[in-house]
Amino acid sequence: MRIAMGLSYNGQAYEGWQSQLSGKTVQDKLEKALSKFTQTPVSTLCAGRTDAGVHGLMQVIHFDTELDRTPYSWVRGTNRYLPLDIAVQWAREMPREFHCRGSAIARRYAYVVLESAVRPSVEVGRVGWVYRPLELEAMQKAAQYLMGEHDFTSFRASSCQALTPVKTMTRIDITRKSTQPGSAVWRFEFEASAFLHHMIRNLMGCFVKIGTGDKPPEWMADVLAARDRDAAAPTFSPDGLYFLGPRYDAQWDLPDRTPAYDGLP
Amino acid sequence: MRIAMGLSYNGQAYEGWQSQLSGKTVQDKLEKALSKFTQTPVSTLCAGRTDAGVHGLMQVIHFDTELDRTPYSWVRGTNRYLPLDIAVQWAREMPREFHCRGSAIARRYAYVVLESAVRPSVEVGRVGWVYRPLELEAMQKAAQYLMGEHDFTSFRASSCQALTPVKTMTRIDITRKSTQPGSAVWRFEFEASAFLHHMIRNLMGCFVKIGTGDKPPEWMADVLAARDRDAAAPTFSPDGLYFLGPRYDAQWDLPDRTPAYDGLP
Repeated sequence: MRIAMGLSYNGQAYEGWQSQLSGKTVQDKLEKALSKFTQTPVSTLCAGRTDAGVHGLMQVIHFDTELDRTPYSWVRGTNRYLPLDIAVQWAREMPREFHCRGSAIARRYAYVVLESAVRPSVEVGRVGWVYRPLELEAMQKAAQYLMGEHDFTSFRASSCQALTPVKTMTRIDITRKSTQPGSAVWRFEFEASAFLHHMIRNLMGCFVKIGTGDKPPEWMADVLAARDRDAAAPTFSPDGLYFLGPRYDAQWDLPDRTPAYDGLP
Repeated sequence: MRIAMGLSYNGQAYEGWQSQLSGKTVQDKLEKALSKFTQTPVSTLCAGRTDAGVHGLMQVIHFDTELDRTPYSWVRGTNRYLPLDIAVQWAREMPREFHCRGSAIARRYAYVVLESAVRPSVEVGRVGWVYRPLELEAMQKAAQYLMGEHDFTSFRASSCQALTPVKTMTRIDITRKSTQPGSAVWRFEFEASAFLHHMIRNLMGCFVKIGTGDKPPEWMADVLAARDRDAAAPTFSPDGLYFLGPRYDAQWDLPDRTPAYDGLP
């Protein structure tokens, strides 16, 4: 049978999602835990690979197994063998037609940025950082240029393995939280059909240049139109990036989020 | 001259605030950084010692020095030698009458709890955890019994060095954040004249017993009246505890909070 799972993890200690010889990736830890629990080798596929240092609030994976266990037993049994910074949040038995990546109709990410004269400390590794104030309206205007279907080549890492750079952006929400003058925590939420490698970190680099006034909002349109990686800002830090998870058609009846969502500032 | 500083730190990697032979405390890291920056030995005092694993959003310290530097220079110069999970947020030259502990008129703490069937992962080390749902009204009712001046002996660790167990609680705010059924993030904020050793972690143990329905709200009054540590619940985890900082009289004109406040969920 096919089992789907939703996972949360803190990416600080890992060399990204995808399995490596070092064994220091989230996939390696998960497959090791599943193999211990099932006492058979288990190979998994995921909805969206994350880079080193990037966190997952609801990564979705699937695998096939002969083992018949309740969803509750899959969650508890796997978590028993996982490190404390990775946890299975839910498990579901799914039809064979379900594919964690192929069935996903959209992906969601959040980027959290601390705006402060002083670097992060309590939140180190979990937020990006800008020391100059950001301006909401300029960034919201810039976001409008990205909405809809575009060739996102300018925001694509050279290592990207996607078949096409054409993706459809359906949502960019920018919110600011501040309880005192001179500092704030920003949250950027992105939803698109799919994302290219480093796409959000490259977009964030541009948003920060626009938010600080180094570039006007219209610059985002210029960068997009250039279809040239050199036109965009440098890749922003992985620290504040969270994979919120894929979206699936309602027919699959899968959870939309995990308890980890409420832990974001 | 006397310099006061406000500091933020993530307590996960440290054996608490107070200097130890191991050198693995926040005070040790701070004094080492100050000594490197000033090229003289520097001894500091703090407003409130925190235990191993407890975080600081605005610890306040002071020290005396012959060195004449601008506040900005103190912040930048010290941070240069501090680990990434500790940061000086502000520095001020103060009159000799100012004392970071003695001048404090109140202390503030926050405790963050994840309510979820599954243990924390992304937020590991930064939140406490309950797997059973908490009930707001019952806990708010229990909080009322703690307000005002009381002998808090029942919530005092045997290691406590306070001169008296009589403290005045002036504020307990309990808030709940949830974007989905079955889980939530709770924030408890406490303000009092001062706190005994382990007092908040012991109070939290009792709040959780009342919030889950194991005990009625009135039990908090019984525990308080008993003046006996054995009457209270076991000490709750340090993971979700944040020292928000002391309060000072307005005459000192010191910051009320740091940018780290907005990083709390």
